[in-house]
Amino acid sequence: MDTENLLHKADLSPSELAKAMLNRHVGDNVETLNNLEIEQAAPVLAALPVERAVEILDQPEFFGGPELIASLPAAHAAALLNAMSADRAADIVRLLPEDTAPLVLAVLDDESRSAIQRLLVYPEDTAGGLMTTEFVSVPSNFTVGQTLEHIRHVERTRETVYAIYVLDPATKRLVQMVTLRRLISADPSAPILSAARESKPITVTPQTDREEVGRLFRKYDLLAVPVVDHFGHVLGIVTVDDAIDAMLQESSEDVQKFGGMEAIDKPYLQMGFGAMIKKRAGWLCVLFLSEMLTASAMQSFEAELEKAIVLTLFVPLIMSSGGNSGSQATSLLIRSLALQELRLRDWWRVAIRELPTGIVLGSFLGIIGIARIAIWQSAGLYDYGPHWQLVALTVGTALIGIVTFGSMAGSMLPFILKRAGFDPASASAPFVATLVDVTGLVIYFSVALVILRGTLL
Amino acid sequence: MDTENLLHKADLSPSELAKAMLNRHVGDNVETLNNLEIEQAAPVLAALPVERAVEILDQPEFFGGPELIASLPAAHAAALLNAMSADRAADIVRLLPEDTAPLVLAVLDDESRSAIQRLLVYPEDTAGGLMTTEFVSVPSNFTVGQTLEHIRHVERTRETVYAIYVLDPATKRLVQMVTLRRLISADPSAPILSAARESKPITVTPQTDREEVGRLFRKYDLLAVPVVDHFGHVLGIVTVDDAIDAMLQESSEDVQKFGGMEAIDKPYLQMGFGAMIKKRAGWLCVLFLSEMLTASAMQSFEAELEKAIVLTLFVPLIMSSGGNSGSQATSLLIRSLALQELRLRDWWRVAIRELPTGIVLGSFLGIIGIARIAIWQSAGLYDYGPHWQLVALTVGTALIGIVTFGSMAGSMLPFILKRAGFDPASASAPFVATLVDVTGLVIYFSVALVILRGTLL
Repeated sequence: MDTENLLHKADLSPSELAKAMLNRHVGDNVETLNNLEIEQAAPVLAALPVERAVEILDQPEFFGGPELIASLPAAHAAALLNAMSADRAADIVRLLPEDTAPLVLAVLDDESRSAIQRLLVYPEDTAGGLMTTEFVSVPSNFTVGQTLEHIRHVERTRETVYAIYVLDPATKRLVQMVTLRRLISADPSAPILSAARESKPITVTPQTDREEVGRLFRKYDLLAVPVVDHFGHVLGIVTVDDAIDAMLQESSEDVQKFGGMEAIDKPYLQMGFGAMIKKRAGWLCVLFLSEMLTASAMQSFEAELEKAIVLTLFVPLIMSSGGNSGSQATSLLIRSLALQELRLRDWWRVAIRELPTGIVLGSFLGIIGIARIAIWQSAGLYDYGPHWQLVALTVGTALIGIVTFGSMAGSMLPFILKRAGFDPASASAPFVATLVDVTGLVIYFSVALVILRGTLL
Repeated sequence: MDTENLLHKADLSPSELAKAMLNRHVGDNVETLNNLEIEQAAPVLAALPVERAVEILDQPEFFGGPELIASLPAAHAAALLNAMSADRAADIVRLLPEDTAPLVLAVLDDESRSAIQRLLVYPEDTAGGLMTTEFVSVPSNFTVGQTLEHIRHVERTRETVYAIYVLDPATKRLVQMVTLRRLISADPSAPILSAARESKPITVTPQTDREEVGRLFRKYDLLAVPVVDHFGHVLGIVTVDDAIDAMLQESSEDVQKFGGMEAIDKPYLQMGFGAMIKKRAGWLCVLFLSEMLTASAMQSFEAELEKAIVLTLFVPLIMSSGGNSGSQATSLLIRSLALQELRLRDWWRVAIRELPTGIVLGSFLGIIGIARIAIWQSAGLYDYGPHWQLVALTVGTALIGIVTFGSMAGSMLPFILKRAGFDPASASAPFVATLVDVTGLVIYFSVALVILRGTLL
């Protein structure tokens, strides 16, 4: 609400807007700037004190970072990147135009540059791409008091101080993790390891997929997780706020993929027109090509269609019912698999549940379908011909078959994709619908051939 | 992996399994028990030390809580609930069978009972339903040192000590929030408020929807948020781990609703057969009834169908393309609205993007469609009749119209639903497909009437 009020004062100069923003929370500032065009946002950011500008750039929810940094003189850009947290700075450098990135990197201070370059090695959707190098570590021969003293010293420059990583003084390998809450309750003269919990610390590698990182946060209620290499050296940590963003991005991607398109990594209005077409055209064309099989199926039943035009009336209705029940089953299963509520080996448990579920749901629809035909016929709304009872029976029976097939196909497809090494979330609603449509037509006409043989066919 | 190894040792007695679990992380224990039937899990939980059993029950990922508590003698159940965190205990009591709950509540100790009863007032999907009453608060006349001393004293019984709530000593109203990291760096003799940040603390009310709670955590990178009443008294706090669970549950619900069913609040295999049917049958029947309009549309074009059977061949293909492009657009928009990347007032920006997007995508499919007919015809694979060029043109033109309509309808529907006060996520893929199917048929036959008049029609 307040943000909107700020924005509606369109007559504010950049420095006035910057001043008004100073009294507000960084999260609100991000929202204000996200709602401006880059050309308007740049002077506002420039008018803010460096400290606040850095705080804003540090928010993963702030979308304009790369464009803003690219629009600044290299020295100014470097000053901001130097002061930013290394993980966010790397995220921004990653998205800089190819010709700008080297110029900016060249004028960074050495420490920031090497930290950023280390982070740039890892793909964005891995623990390496999410991690920050600003964490607290102490050698295992420190006492509790020494550790607290160290934390007080470095607090301002660390993303979190709530998890402290205890390293072997000689090999620098990770020995244990200590939480700040245990630390402040411990005896200051006790060795740091006395404040550690007994179990081994949870760790990830830089290659760990961000979906798995999210799962570990959820499972172990973590505030941060260390990213370690093969030797057990801590390369960085992923903090809970970055893990949350990653989890929500994964969820959004799941929804988009389920909607039958490639996942997009930017907010809707930030996507270029061409990029948006690219993300959508691929799947749309693949689905269209597969759906052409329906035309082939229809062609092969052309003789039946000509004899019984009445059958064509229900083709869209019957096809869509299969797609709908399939889409329901798929939406259930891809989430269960994503959250690991189900494993690959549970497929048969799902199958033996979906079979009766499909039959019951199909029977509901079958009864409604038969009732509809009977009512229209009796009320004189439409004449389905002398054999209308048989037509109704055909529609009802086909619905049971198609809804059952839809439930089975929709629930098994995510398992099959996962088994084949694909993301189960690729089993989109349109994908399932396409799969079910072709089979649905075959089921419908086969049922018709059996029930209507000797009368209509 | 390890969990599976444990489970495969099916010959382990409950006490042996309990013993093996003791060396493992609570998160792993939860996984192990979740994979057992209730009858198997109950004796294992009973064989664990109370402290560990409580830790397991405290995990929101542990599904068997209510059943397990119900299966225990009331005194034993009460002992566990007394020791649990109040928010999780309330979650379990909420799900106890109606006849069991009063028996268990009666033998709880007074403090736990009143805490649980206070929490039970709030619906599960609100901040009140998510919050815990175990937080740290100090009066504003405390010093930093006194506060640290207090935290050391109560640390073991609080869900988080990283956010400390400073209250007015007289009115007990929330004055400020202090983080532990600022506290340990501050001068112990300084007043507590000197360690607070300047800005007002972010708060929610017990009625705040959990989706909004998640959004605040994301926006302000919170580790906890206080839940305050109208007078500014802190009723409890929502911690980040509970917020994550709520966010992911919201995401799952979005996917399920998008798949065209009611959201389910339990993992797939924990849902009863009847409950599952109920969640799916409603929407399936509504969609079926709406889709019946396609039969009516087909009926009204029956004369055309009889004259030009060739048109029916492409009905499934054309209908599904509209549904697919609509489903893509909807998946994009419901996520953008859920994450507040877009507001209601942005609808026209979306509309002016989706219109050209739909035309371009529709043209792609139109060209493929025309090519397909031309190739089949020229190669002699199928004979679309003497006017096959006009048929191809009809299909191509209809595809542009239908895909454009699909993109527009799919992108506007979430806005319309939101404007009307519904959840935009109710705009499921099947819902959009149904909407587009009927219109798609009308578009197709109208285009055919124009292009084929005087030849086929």
